[in-house]
Amino acid sequence: MIFLKVSFLGPATSFSHNAALKAFPEAELVEVESIHNVFDTVESKEAEFGVVPLENSTEGSVTSTLDLLLSHNVFITGELSIRVVHCLLAKSGIKKIEKIYSHPQALSQCEKWLRKNYPKARLVGSSSTASAAEHTAKLDNAAAIASKQTAPKFGLEILEEGIQDLDFNETRFVVIGLKHAEPASNNKTTMFFALKDKPGGLFDCLKGFKDSNINLTRLESRPSKKEAWNYVFFVEFEGDQTEPRVKKAIEELKKYTVLVKVLGSYPKAGE
Amino acid sequence: MIFLKVSFLGPATSFSHNAALKAFPEAELVEVESIHNVFDTVESKEAEFGVVPLENSTEGSVTSTLDLLLSHNVFITGELSIRVVHCLLAKSGIKKIEKIYSHPQALSQCEKWLRKNYPKARLVGSSSTASAAEHTAKLDNAAAIASKQTAPKFGLEILEEGIQDLDFNETRFVVIGLKHAEPASNNKTTMFFALKDKPGGLFDCLKGFKDSNINLTRLESRPSKKEAWNYVFFVEFEGDQTEPRVKKAIEELKKYTVLVKVLGSYPKAGE
Repeated sequence: MIFLKVSFLGPATSFSHNAALKAFPEAELVEVESIHNVFDTVESKEAEFGVVPLENSTEGSVTSTLDLLLSHNVFITGELSIRVVHCLLAKSGIKKIEKIYSHPQALSQCEKWLRKNYPKARLVGSSSTASAAEHTAKLDNAAAIASKQTAPKFGLEILEEGIQDLDFNETRFVVIGLKHAEPASNNKTTMFFALKDKPGGLFDCLKGFKDSNINLTRLESRPSKKEAWNYVFFVEFEGDQTEPRVKKAIEELKKYTVLVKVLGSYPKAGE
Repeated sequence: MIFLKVSFLGPATSFSHNAALKAFPEAELVEVESIHNVFDTVESKEAEFGVVPLENSTEGSVTSTLDLLLSHNVFITGELSIRVVHCLLAKSGIKKIEKIYSHPQALSQCEKWLRKNYPKARLVGSSSTASAAEHTAKLDNAAAIASKQTAPKFGLEILEEGIQDLDFNETRFVVIGLKHAEPASNNKTTMFFALKDKPGGLFDCLKGFKDSNINLTRLESRPSKKEAWNYVFFVEFEGDQTEPRVKKAIEELKKYTVLVKVLGSYPKAGE
């Protein structure tokens, strides 16, 4: 067995931790303080792989991860989804909840529930759900939104379980590394591109995919961070970057773009 | 003169406040505690208009505003952009900065600067930049990222000015109301649609715009929040919804979608 180090956004019991355990049950897991640090540990080879959240079914893209995929020289080598059940946690016996801490994505995933049940509470964003719980353990007037497993870890009580607004709430994580995954006919591919500034540009970019009968399963735009009001588009589709029809679509795409990068072709998550 | 009430995300001196002052210099401005409340006050007619942030040139869409445009029955009647210069503010004479408070969008806009200058500080998300400053005024170990005008309002010192990662940093705000703006040939239009679930769906949706020679200036996807992994697309283009070529493109679009809503045609912001 090859001994692997895999980094994730900690502390332990965060949803990223659950995802890293599921993806790499035998690896040495290295907790770091931010998604940025996950990318840094992979790029500097302190860890062979990193596990980072890419999007949530309720709240959408984790934009910081998309931006880090743009700025770092890493590839996507795998994906997995995990069910996210949020709990309201607090120190045992507290009388009032004036503040509720969590990751901003988690606060958004529970927004309706919070507005209904704690309309007066101050919502405070933290770097992860587990760090919110850790912080709350020191406070007498606050609660945290985090995973069930977080409660015993920080000595908190579960006040309510399953408070996310949509019952079906899943986060999709990707595995990042320095090498592309093995080609396979049932892989999916993630890539990004930047348009030439000309009318109809996006339509022209999608034409090559249509002509090659490639179905885009996702399209997302992000600011380029190089020039104001200039965007980069992320696309995902079923197919491997080594397939002739995919190569052809990418060649066609290059005519209309100033930048194209294939982030990776990798096996789809199991259902 | 007609007397107008206009709501915005407060407290006063927030960037939303600056935008509301610029858009409605003569109106009675009503500060509310969340972007959600801006929509509610407009929908319930407590305010004739609301001013909400839609996207930032560095950090991208304000996703909560996009989601509220989906869920509320309001129209976009105007837009404006304001330059956003972030400052680091704190109580006079503090010795250590262990925490830095701001709106999550502002923390992201200053991410590189923060990593370089305060790598150890805990970053804490607040409901607005001005509320972060207000909160910091009570603390001896914390700073806030907010506008320059916020400093005198809450008795804070400006430790550093212009800390955003990209010098050119602009936020685009839209005005929401219950009626469409007047048609005009140089208007722009914002709308959203949801695809039928079929291969090549997005390409088909864009074809009508291409055929009518309409240049999409923006395309953004968001989770539908009705079904997991199901998306709604926001598009923007130059043209008014009453123009024949725009009507034709929208009719074509309807063939490939299960939902189409024109959020509004309105004058472009001045350069």
